[in-house]
Amino acid sequence: MNAAAPIALTQGDPSGIGPELALMAYVLRESRDLPPFFLLSHPAFIARVAATLALEIQIESTTAAQARDVFSRALPVVDTGRHVVAGAPGRPDSQDAQSTISSIEQAVECVAKGEARAVVTNPIAKSVLYEAGFKHPGHTEFLAELAHRHYGGDYRAVMMLWSDELAVVPITIHIPLADASKNLTRELIVATGEIVAHDLRARFHISKPRLAFAGFNPHAGEEGALGREEIDVIAPAIAELRARGVNASGPFPADTMFHESARAKYDVALCPTHDQALIPIKTLAFERGVNVTLGLPFVRTSPDHGTAFDIAGKGIADPTSLIEAIKLAGRIS
Amino acid sequence: MNAAAPIALTQGDPSGIGPELALMAYVLRESRDLPPFFLLSHPAFIARVAATLALEIQIESTTAAQARDVFSRALPVVDTGRHVVAGAPGRPDSQDAQSTISSIEQAVECVAKGEARAVVTNPIAKSVLYEAGFKHPGHTEFLAELAHRHYGGDYRAVMMLWSDELAVVPITIHIPLADASKNLTRELIVATGEIVAHDLRARFHISKPRLAFAGFNPHAGEEGALGREEIDVIAPAIAELRARGVNASGPFPADTMFHESARAKYDVALCPTHDQALIPIKTLAFERGVNVTLGLPFVRTSPDHGTAFDIAGKGIADPTSLIEAIKLAGRIS
Repeated sequence: MNAAAPIALTQGDPSGIGPELALMAYVLRESRDLPPFFLLSHPAFIARVAATLALEIQIESTTAAQARDVFSRALPVVDTGRHVVAGAPGRPDSQDAQSTISSIEQAVECVAKGEARAVVTNPIAKSVLYEAGFKHPGHTEFLAELAHRHYGGDYRAVMMLWSDELAVVPITIHIPLADASKNLTRELIVATGEIVAHDLRARFHISKPRLAFAGFNPHAGEEGALGREEIDVIAPAIAELRARGVNASGPFPADTMFHESARAKYDVALCPTHDQALIPIKTLAFERGVNVTLGLPFVRTSPDHGTAFDIAGKGIADPTSLIEAIKLAGRIS
Repeated sequence: MNAAAPIALTQGDPSGIGPELALMAYVLRESRDLPPFFLLSHPAFIARVAATLALEIQIESTTAAQARDVFSRALPVVDTGRHVVAGAPGRPDSQDAQSTISSIEQAVECVAKGEARAVVTNPIAKSVLYEAGFKHPGHTEFLAELAHRHYGGDYRAVMMLWSDELAVVPITIHIPLADASKNLTRELIVATGEIVAHDLRARFHISKPRLAFAGFNPHAGEEGALGREEIDVIAPAIAELRARGVNASGPFPADTMFHESARAKYDVALCPTHDQALIPIKTLAFERGVNVTLGLPFVRTSPDHGTAFDIAGKGIADPTSLIEAIKLAGRIS
């Protein structure tokens, strides 16, 4: 990791809001005090998006090595060599899938070579990539595979949602809720907790991170009366983490973990289910939440929203989450 | 219902924080603009609690019929005839269970006779009542049984958590999360939605209440990819409610329902699981949430906290939620 290098920003789906958010972030670079970044895309396409939105922005095709110098006068765009040919705003096309994929691949290559300090990814549409033969379950798994390709080793990626007010980690994520109990194993909880504790130390410079675990059932199971996952799985996992030196506490009733005085007692809340984790952060920090992937050998953040095809190309997308993602990537890399 | 009558406030567990909260609410009656209320308890016991906390409050033993006049000069306490003899603050005793139960029974009797306009209940400890032979699953079920006794008919009670910022209804409540899917039936959703829509019209004077339903699975199931409860159960229930004239919408991804602009689109959010509903309201309005029981033939509210035996008798309990419960009971009765 080269802390003097700029941040590599991926294109995302070219028909989504990613390209326009990148332009808007560049416009706001001084007022929002953003670290230098470059966009991995197709320079002529980015110029088209700027023209469509009537944004008067200098765009300069450059290399990752020169992007830092370019940033003060123009948005540096590093050509992936994959042109965007088909998709219009809001109308994704699998012919453009390779431009999306190459941007991600080259961003990781840049960070592995020291030409970028971190990767910030714009939103992709998995269904569009699948039509083009993409084989990975999602963005995060693809990044773990690219980490393996460039750094060796196997990586288990952990999703954290971060904001100034609250950081949360869903322990189970995109699975049916009826399957959450059987997926919530002691091994998964311990492995997740160790990655979170390690990365909060290494990246966020919290010397002794405090991890608070939510229960799975209402009222954290009320001593077993409302379910046994706390007794059988979560409490033993917390004990194991503590034995390994992690400052882990809980399981606590999820509903009383997220008001202001409760939040002061921990650095990150780890929740058994997706909604237990995502509801409070999106309630408190809807536009400002940042998705941070922990467990990778490099820093990766992304805005906490999707491609938003319904508003793409209209110039009304809110760049706050992307801006926060770029700022956080600069801070922790 | 007699809108000129005072509100009947139950004692709750005498060893919990209920009695001292009642005293503090009386102290704050003018600054918080509270409607007249009376406490159903044991006058000498309430005087003891006031003395212990060094609260200089006039306490007057009276009848429900005279309580309104007494309220301007003293806290009216209507004697239940069941003395509190054993429990000390923080040390509940089943010898006092009958005082807790009688207070609830007499509060409903007062409202049925027109001597009270609404019932506000202080927290009880179910385990203490069970030791004394109490047979009901909880406070709410007991109130439904008392409603049947005094009003005839069968009542299905629905729990709503209410605050100025947000109102939520958990559709399944105190059951293991692994059982939530099989408990989430179309019949339950429709019956809950109809009671909520009726009572928001009748009690809250919202002429066409907007009910927004959350999905059960992450991202409301993503068209079935992450679970089928939305397709098989929730959407058909919403369609049935709409056919019956209820303004019901959804199912929506739960995590994006609770930020400020999303909340502006509905009057109440109905969530399949306990934590989906309770997390956002306790995040936004921790001290101010009020529990409102819908579906009964009278108004019943309660503070959104428990007996708090750990802090009882110390004078540090926060009366905000009880005060909000009394205010709301006055407003909707």
